[in-house]
Amino acid sequence: MGELDEILEISKRRGFFWPSFSIYGGVAGLNDYGPLGSILKDRIYHEWKRIYSSIGGIEIDTPSVTPETVLKASGHVDRFIDLAVGCNTCKSKFKVESLLSDKGVEKVPENVEEAWNLIKDIEIKCPRCGGQLGEPFEFHLMFPIDSNGERYYLRPETAQGIFVNFKLLLNFNRGKLPMIVYQQGKGYRNEISPRQGLIRQKEFNMGEVEVFLDPDVNGTFRPDSTEKLTLLDREGKIHRESLVDAVNKGIIQSEDHAYFLQKTFEFAVRIGIDRERLRFRQHRKDELAHYSRDCWDLEFRIDSSWVEVTGISDRGTFDLGNHQKSSGENLAFENGRLARVIEPASGIDRMFMAVLISSMVKRENGYNNMKLLEYMAPYPVAVLPLQKKDGLSEKAKEIFSMIREMEPYAYYDESGTIGRRYARQDEIGTPYCITIDYDTLEKDVVTIRDRDSTEQITGVPYKDLLTHSPFLTNPILKKVRK
Amino acid sequence: MGELDEILEISKRRGFFWPSFSIYGGVAGLNDYGPLGSILKDRIYHEWKRIYSSIGGIEIDTPSVTPETVLKASGHVDRFIDLAVGCNTCKSKFKVESLLSDKGVEKVPENVEEAWNLIKDIEIKCPRCGGQLGEPFEFHLMFPIDSNGERYYLRPETAQGIFVNFKLLLNFNRGKLPMIVYQQGKGYRNEISPRQGLIRQKEFNMGEVEVFLDPDVNGTFRPDSTEKLTLLDREGKIHRESLVDAVNKGIIQSEDHAYFLQKTFEFAVRIGIDRERLRFRQHRKDELAHYSRDCWDLEFRIDSSWVEVTGISDRGTFDLGNHQKSSGENLAFENGRLARVIEPASGIDRMFMAVLISSMVKRENGYNNMKLLEYMAPYPVAVLPLQKKDGLSEKAKEIFSMIREMEPYAYYDESGTIGRRYARQDEIGTPYCITIDYDTLEKDVVTIRDRDSTEQITGVPYKDLLTHSPFLTNPILKKVRK
Repeated sequence: MGELDEILEISKRRGFFWPSFSIYGGVAGLNDYGPLGSILKDRIYHEWKRIYSSIGGIEIDTPSVTPETVLKASGHVDRFIDLAVGCNTCKSKFKVESLLSDKGVEKVPENVEEAWNLIKDIEIKCPRCGGQLGEPFEFHLMFPIDSNGERYYLRPETAQGIFVNFKLLLNFNRGKLPMIVYQQGKGYRNEISPRQGLIRQKEFNMGEVEVFLDPDVNGTFRPDSTEKLTLLDREGKIHRESLVDAVNKGIIQSEDHAYFLQKTFEFAVRIGIDRERLRFRQHRKDELAHYSRDCWDLEFRIDSSWVEVTGISDRGTFDLGNHQKSSGENLAFENGRLARVIEPASGIDRMFMAVLISSMVKRENGYNNMKLLEYMAPYPVAVLPLQKKDGLSEKAKEIFSMIREMEPYAYYDESGTIGRRYARQDEIGTPYCITIDYDTLEKDVVTIRDRDSTEQITGVPYKDLLTHSPFLTNPILKKVRK
Repeated sequence: MGELDEILEISKRRGFFWPSFSIYGGVAGLNDYGPLGSILKDRIYHEWKRIYSSIGGIEIDTPSVTPETVLKASGHVDRFIDLAVGCNTCKSKFKVESLLSDKGVEKVPENVEEAWNLIKDIEIKCPRCGGQLGEPFEFHLMFPIDSNGERYYLRPETAQGIFVNFKLLLNFNRGKLPMIVYQQGKGYRNEISPRQGLIRQKEFNMGEVEVFLDPDVNGTFRPDSTEKLTLLDREGKIHRESLVDAVNKGIIQSEDHAYFLQKTFEFAVRIGIDRERLRFRQHRKDELAHYSRDCWDLEFRIDSSWVEVTGISDRGTFDLGNHQKSSGENLAFENGRLARVIEPASGIDRMFMAVLISSMVKRENGYNNMKLLEYMAPYPVAVLPLQKKDGLSEKAKEIFSMIREMEPYAYYDESGTIGRRYARQDEIGTPYCITIDYDTLEKDVVTIRDRDSTEQITGVPYKDLLTHSPFLTNPILKKVRK
């Protein structure tokens, strides 16, 4: 079983995420976050906001339902399309780009004609039934909505909600650049062929940042990391360089752009993604989105393939220029000058998958240990009576209710053997288990168990656990970890 | 200017919220949360989750895009409609229920015929132009979406995402009732006549809780509050009773239902809504939603009218029964028995408005003071140099950057006079301002100012402010407040 399949299995069984609407047969490309996943996703967003607010970023939250005028101006109505192809036999539909990629051709055809020629040249058949493919066609990726005679779309990105508010936001920012604006929220794409799990969905969680810069100032933000990273440039050349050196050597074109690659990498590592599984890849010219002049993707390796988790795009003045033209409003930051935009846009669901895959390790006994970072774990602590009998259960519930006042995501479990309960907490990543045993009844002390080492320290007065809120700030826990 | 108008003005000017897509003329019923509002909304959801997780609730996060089968089963496709009426002259459309209410008739007509008779009897004219109204018609409140030949809708409530997952959630909950499941997310209604601000929107933030109970057990949850509340029953009778007494006297029909009225009230007060502006009102039979057997709304007074902020509905086994029938899956919790559901469903945007309106007070000098609770304020602290010159600005930035490491939503401001900067922070509810002055340069001490009393304590060593993270846990701040 591959890493991806294993995570899908654990996620469904333990309650991280699962396919939506399963009692009705499910819908491809829609997933639910279960009880554990909902907390973990919140924690990912929390860290993301922390990173961008701590460099002066400001937040906004705009609707998903977006008037056609806005998306006409942004180019999405006309250009947010995939080239698709249908099978004459089994009627399945595919994205041409994916079919080409499966054949080792990394290319996004410019139009229907080019796609058709490529399919015929390479003699691509239907990957599902081997049948003949029909002529390619344009497939629109937005979901249209009609309301009271007006046309709207579900937003394909949260970014436009930021651009159309540029003036109000700049006013909030006291008229000053640089201005960093971030938005958490859903994006929607009518995917032709949604993929397993959270990777290619019709409805997904985004974390987009728009950095507005004075286009005549270089190096408003400068990278300072000397860590060597893997950088795959648009010519297909692989570099091992720090971001500082990558700018000096012209691999990355601007310091500002490189700085937000650095922030993106910091975010990924901060939430627990394995740095060894990450690389940056520059888009080829043919795959750039219509609004993008240059783009570096942060990619995460799952099994043997690379998946984009964040795109850091240079959108230039494309969006502000278009909205200025379409709306007739002056969107300049001063004297007719438009701000230049760098956009680190994260797919939060993909980040989420990357966190789980990075954290999962197999113990020697074959059990799973989800080595989530302490502050990322859905449950920071589980309270477990050794057994139910002899008043242990009552005592444990009493202690649990005190701990839960400090830590609302504390968890209580008394069913099954203590060994199975430890194994369950290990698999969902709970860093600490507190066990209530006969010593607790006699001496008011508990045992604390560390997830990763499985070591236990006994004789901890439980009152000492109630002195620090949130629970994880308690210095006793640091001792356990050592 | 009324309270509502005043809040709309402050909100737009200061960045709490504003109408969406304004550079394109705006869209009725869509609003953006600005930088301050985004943080405050997050804090409201945070407290809401804290309340329900601390009584054992579990979270889920399901898609907005919902297949027609699901909403057919839930009754929304057939019954989620308003009766509407158009003006023959100006072509405006109105909700019949609102027109009747404006005339003092609190009634939801059952069908087109009844609506038409009422309009003719009361001789209602178009409230916009005085013109003749046409025959009423059914207006469907969901937004349909067509994707690849399948019909979906944007969900009108988050609840259905919980019901269809009942089995997976019950499994997560170890097969045990009671089970409390909550979901944060967007809901969508194609409102005929959206209202000002965040009160009636096409896209809105919900916080829904579904409490699954064994229908043969009464009093799984019991209220214990002795605080006297205002309760308006379905006959229009006003009671001043505690929730405990309201159950004893038969005003509220079950202890479980009353308990979640209590939790709802606790939540409202916890986020800073003025308890004196709250009442519970029971739905009349004619206004109950199609899925509801009984419903109490928590209402908040704005100016002289009452606005629902949370509905606590008894949905019985309506939803699980329908999904069981439609899907063919067994949704019983044991031996064919279906769980009974109590649902406290909060309109988070309305709660947000209620928090702002409850917090706004006018000072004697005419300035606004937004008395948000400490832990709710978007910025817990602002750092202000007395002046920019003489190195004060540099010193202030240095201290600010240390504080921001502990508290990412700390704010820095150096523009304009110190008096105006205090006034600005008061108006957006920042509980503490830290002023850097000449004493700071000489003695490393700062001045802390309390928002509500405007009192200042001087001579606080700034290093003592860096000892507690998050910032608000610092005991020095308690002293300032005293």
